[in-house]
Amino acid sequence: KAELVELLTKISDTASTDATADKSGPTIRDLVSGHACVVQSSAIVPDDKDKIAEVVKGWCASGEVDWIITTGGTGFGVRDVTPEAVGPLIERSAPGLVHLMLATSLKHTAMAALSRPVAGTIGNTLITTLPGSVKAVKENIDALLQSGVVFHAIELIQGDSGRRVHTEL
Amino acid sequence: KAELVELLTKISDTASTDATADKSGPTIRDLVSGHACVVQSSAIVPDDKDKIAEVVKGWCASGEVDWIITTGGTGFGVRDVTPEAVGPLIERSAPGLVHLMLATSLKHTAMAALSRPVAGTIGNTLITTLPGSVKAVKENIDALLQSGVVFHAIELIQGDSGRRVHTEL
Amino acid sequence: KAELVELLTKISDTASTDATADKSGPTIRDLVSGHACVVQSSAIVPDDKDKIAEVVKGWCASGEVDWIITTGGTGFGVRDVTPEAVGPLIERSAPGLVHLMLATSLKHTAMAALSRPVAGTIGNTLITTLPGSVKAVKENIDALLQSGVVFHAIELIQGDSGRRVHTEL
Ligand code: NA
Repeated sequence: KAELVELLTKISDTASTDATADKSGPTIRDLVSGHACVVQSSAIVPDDKDKIAEVVKGWCASGEVDWIITTGGTGFGVRDVTPEAVGPLIERSAPGLVHLMLATSLKHTAMAALSRPVAGTIGNTLITTLPGSVKAVKENIDALLQSGVVFHAIELIQGDSGRRVHTEL
Repeated sequence: KAELVELLTKISDTASTDATADKSGPTIRDLVSGHACVVQSSAIVPDDKDKIAEVVKGWCASGEVDWIITTGGTGFGVRDVTPEAVGPLIERSAPGLVHLMLATSLKHTAMAALSRPVAGTIGNTLITTLPGSVKAVKENIDALLQSGVVFHAIELIQGDSGRRVHTEL
Repeated sequence: KAELVELLTKISDTASTDATADKSGPTIRDLVSGHACVVQSSAIVPDDKDKIAEVVKGWCASGEVDWIITTGGTGFGVRDVTPEAVGPLIERSAPGLVHLMLATSLKHTAMAALSRPVAGTIGNTLITTLPGSVKAVKENIDALLQSGVVFHAIELIQGDSGRRVHTEL
């Protein structure tokens, strides 16, 4: 995995302002930093469809964000609208990543069926929406990082430019 | 589960006019009534996209239906259009519930891959589309009721009003 | 399965012009021909959304194609746009077939999460989008043909006309 570090210039995470927001963000940072990733930006965004979309669009437009991880807002609560904010922005859906996240979480608890994740690409950025609980975040990140799945996705998304950087270093 | 009974004022089921319509409806009623649910309305609707959508919209507009369960019309038959009737009405998709239903049914038979379920919320109502066969209905209802998954979803969808009722009683 | 041969007048496959195009197409032909299927047409199409859609629409419009199998273009590479070409053409989505394909492939490797398959019906034609690698194609075709799943789907899609042909022969 270490050979992918040069491709992963930035990993960003958002967190909606729910009760677990101050715990799940640091959990993501801890988990991915053990995999040669650098978290460059993070933001705590209220459960507002427009505001979530605005942050995501801004980061994707910069062209310098490899992976956006959101945590929170994917459940059935009246304010849970992260998938509704992110979904319409996705240009290429990734049902395989959604399946992997759900199948992994459902091994631990049937309550994982209450998650409503979306995943896919926006420009050259990969985005995955994780549940808000620290436990679910760990399970999902572990699933996505196993065998380098997400890193391989990012390498492919970066295309020629990504491969060029890799060759140069 | 019993503590959720006050939230579940109504559970409705539709059934398309296929051969199993007169069997799957009662099966649903039997299964959920063992879980402190009350079936308030039911309707047998022809395999017509507009007519199915009309019934669903009417029930959701009443604001008093917690869960709509449809049975039938989710297969590959030329008249199977329940997902096409319900899908466009869904405001927040629930891929986790779809995954749970399919994964559970596929444990029993590969033929479960012929089901084309949708699930999600329309206003404060949860809707899930089940296959038409009694056997598949049982498997899907069991999957959705395990560990109180659907009851927890409904409690969350009801939000403050739901929680208020719960506290008052 | 042999009794379904008369329904399966044509099975077509497309293959995008990636490195494995010349291997996966023949693999599909070999695999399905062991199941009483006849591949009538095939096409190697560049990774161009419009060109892929044009071929698929043409074959579906003929009304004589039972099953279109595409291979390639479902990953995260910058040119991988098969799902984006096929998805908008699908009239009835088949999440059960997508689930079956992903669950089967994920049993072999976590990398299967990098596939972004779509499946469903366009008119009377079933379409499934397979990954580009020979190994993944084999796993997906095996999953779709197990217990006659796809053949049963095709029989249902054909409806009365399909059943009439069946009865006549
Ligand atoms: Na699964």
